[in-house]
Amino acid sequence: MTLAWWCQPCAPVDGAFLDIAQERQRQLTKPAGSLGQLETIAVRLAALQGSPRPRLANVHIGLFAADHGVVAEGVSPYPQAVTGQMLRNFINGGAAISVLARNLGAQMTVVDLGTVTPLDLPGVRQARLGAGTRNFAQAAAMTPGQCAGALQVGRETAQFAAAQGAELFIGGEMGIGNTTSASALAAWLLNCPAADLVGPGTGLDAAGVNHKAQVIEAALRVHGPSCAGPLEALACFGGFEIAALVGSYLGAAQAGVAALVDGFICSVAALIAVRLNPECAPWLFFAHQGAEPGHRAVLQALQAQPLLALGLRLGEGSGAALAVPLMRLACELHGNMATFAEAAVADRPA
Amino acid sequence: MTLAWWCQPCAPVDGAFLDIAQERQRQLTKPAGSLGQLETIAVRLAALQGSPRPRLANVHIGLFAADHGVVAEGVSPYPQAVTGQMLRNFINGGAAISVLARNLGAQMTVVDLGTVTPLDLPGVRQARLGAGTRNFAQAAAMTPGQCAGALQVGRETAQFAAAQGAELFIGGEMGIGNTTSASALAAWLLNCPAADLVGPGTGLDAAGVNHKAQVIEAALRVHGPSCAGPLEALACFGGFEIAALVGSYLGAAQAGVAALVDGFICSVAALIAVRLNPECAPWLFFAHQGAEPGHRAVLQALQAQPLLALGLRLGEGSGAALAVPLMRLACELHGNMATFAEAAVADRPA
Repeated sequence: MTLAWWCQPCAPVDGAFLDIAQERQRQLTKPAGSLGQLETIAVRLAALQGSPRPRLANVHIGLFAADHGVVAEGVSPYPQAVTGQMLRNFINGGAAISVLARNLGAQMTVVDLGTVTPLDLPGVRQARLGAGTRNFAQAAAMTPGQCAGALQVGRETAQFAAAQGAELFIGGEMGIGNTTSASALAAWLLNCPAADLVGPGTGLDAAGVNHKAQVIEAALRVHGPSCAGPLEALACFGGFEIAALVGSYLGAAQAGVAALVDGFICSVAALIAVRLNPECAPWLFFAHQGAEPGHRAVLQALQAQPLLALGLRLGEGSGAALAVPLMRLACELHGNMATFAEAAVADRPA
Repeated sequence: MTLAWWCQPCAPVDGAFLDIAQERQRQLTKPAGSLGQLETIAVRLAALQGSPRPRLANVHIGLFAADHGVVAEGVSPYPQAVTGQMLRNFINGGAAISVLARNLGAQMTVVDLGTVTPLDLPGVRQARLGAGTRNFAQAAAMTPGQCAGALQVGRETAQFAAAQGAELFIGGEMGIGNTTSASALAAWLLNCPAADLVGPGTGLDAAGVNHKAQVIEAALRVHGPSCAGPLEALACFGGFEIAALVGSYLGAAQAGVAALVDGFICSVAALIAVRLNPECAPWLFFAHQGAEPGHRAVLQALQAQPLLALGLRLGEGSGAALAVPLMRLACELHGNMATFAEAAVADRPA
């Protein structure tokens, strides 16, 4: 029996460059450690890129969209048609992630994994696995075949990014109802009550949040015990786009491309990726702590140190895109500041 | 008797553009409020610039350097010569702020207000008020004339930035010993024990931090009660560069240029500016929550919502420079995202 692709080794990380980069940080004209998290980022990227002076010129955004059967339970204030409409907005340049990608000079691959109202949109990669997932309140959201298919779409997107020379991969998601799917997965993964994790998503009121938690709790009682592991839970509670994100993070780590994880939904996908193959962990950076309550718990489980906390709750990869300039400036500072010796500045205590 | 310049009115803020910008934010293709602090920033800038689509192309950094007599008390691990050496590093492009300014396309004005070892550096504006301040453990750090002079240098730097078309002014500082000066000012302004505010600065150990707090407490007991207000406290505990920052924030607000406040020392200067003339408050943005313990207390007193918290403790305006891309992207999103109508996306609950 061959190992599933996602269990195969990730690209190795070169510890020698970690030491070289740390030593360079100590010599730069600043008090040691005074650039905080930016120092850690530059040092990690040096090891991942196997380069004393890492760079992040080439950024690739994989944007995965799909619909969710669980929306039938009344868990979102928006109609499902919005998922398809937003695909058009991504391509036409009007969405937040489109504006950010232009400003960053980032390439964007937009993938339809299964919207309920597909539009014939040039520029969207069609990788449809169905007209949305099934309602996980009634049945498993995906068949094992659909789940494997979605993982593979994510993997291929990351591989395409790597082939294009990407130095950083960002996964983004769009899917009305997908905070419900992500919250169910988080509750299963963290083995904690849904009520502790569920939030307003795109804009539920308190009664709506309560109802959403009840829908998830009921589904966890029915399906949860029969899920043998994270892969089965992923198929059960779904999200084609969440499975694609999982595949993309694993594919990026195997291809030797660092990935920057966006908000709550992406962080849940990252946690599944790490549970499936812990070797991918060093390749993951975390962009932000979002407004959704479950995000903090998932980030803690990942021992993540997110860069931003701006109260974001949009998705699309937008929070990750917003963190790119910080990571680029971390590289610029690491690579281009003068050392104490070069600048003839005293570096020893008086 | 004429009013001191810093008490004169700041530029007016156009509330009509606040409403226009808020209405536009509600129409953009995203759940209302989902871009968190970035929405607030764009809306505030719209009102400050009197423009429906604000921009931050032109950023000016005023970098103020000076030495501190209180270093004689052994409050810093670095020799005072580093202040002058770093001035050369700023000009030669090797310092963190130099690297950041280049990457942002920001103009930089570097001012020597009084280093103990002045170097003949082309490109540094000479506005020397003495060979550093006096040791505030023994006497007031500045004469009233020196304090007024430093305020005026800051004001002129902001006015120069405004004349160059700056849409954002960043103040930076360099001065071995200046966290001691800033901590003394913060303790006086907030009427709280120095021990609650004092931190390692550029790299003191626990014993050093304790000694620094004792030096400040002793000075507060001697001078504190005789300071009639924030201006007298500023002269007493000094920092030529801190006074210049105060003047620059007030000058920017009077000239109608938004200012982005850097770390602990700059936030103390901002608090003095607001105490001297509360009208400047709407013109101030806060870049980050730094590692120095007193920073949190000062930001709370300012009701500030900083953008970043990366464990920075470098100064030079570096934390503010790092926040510029976020503010620029906030403007880009506000100005260039599609509305629900433009994108034909449903914006009403199902």
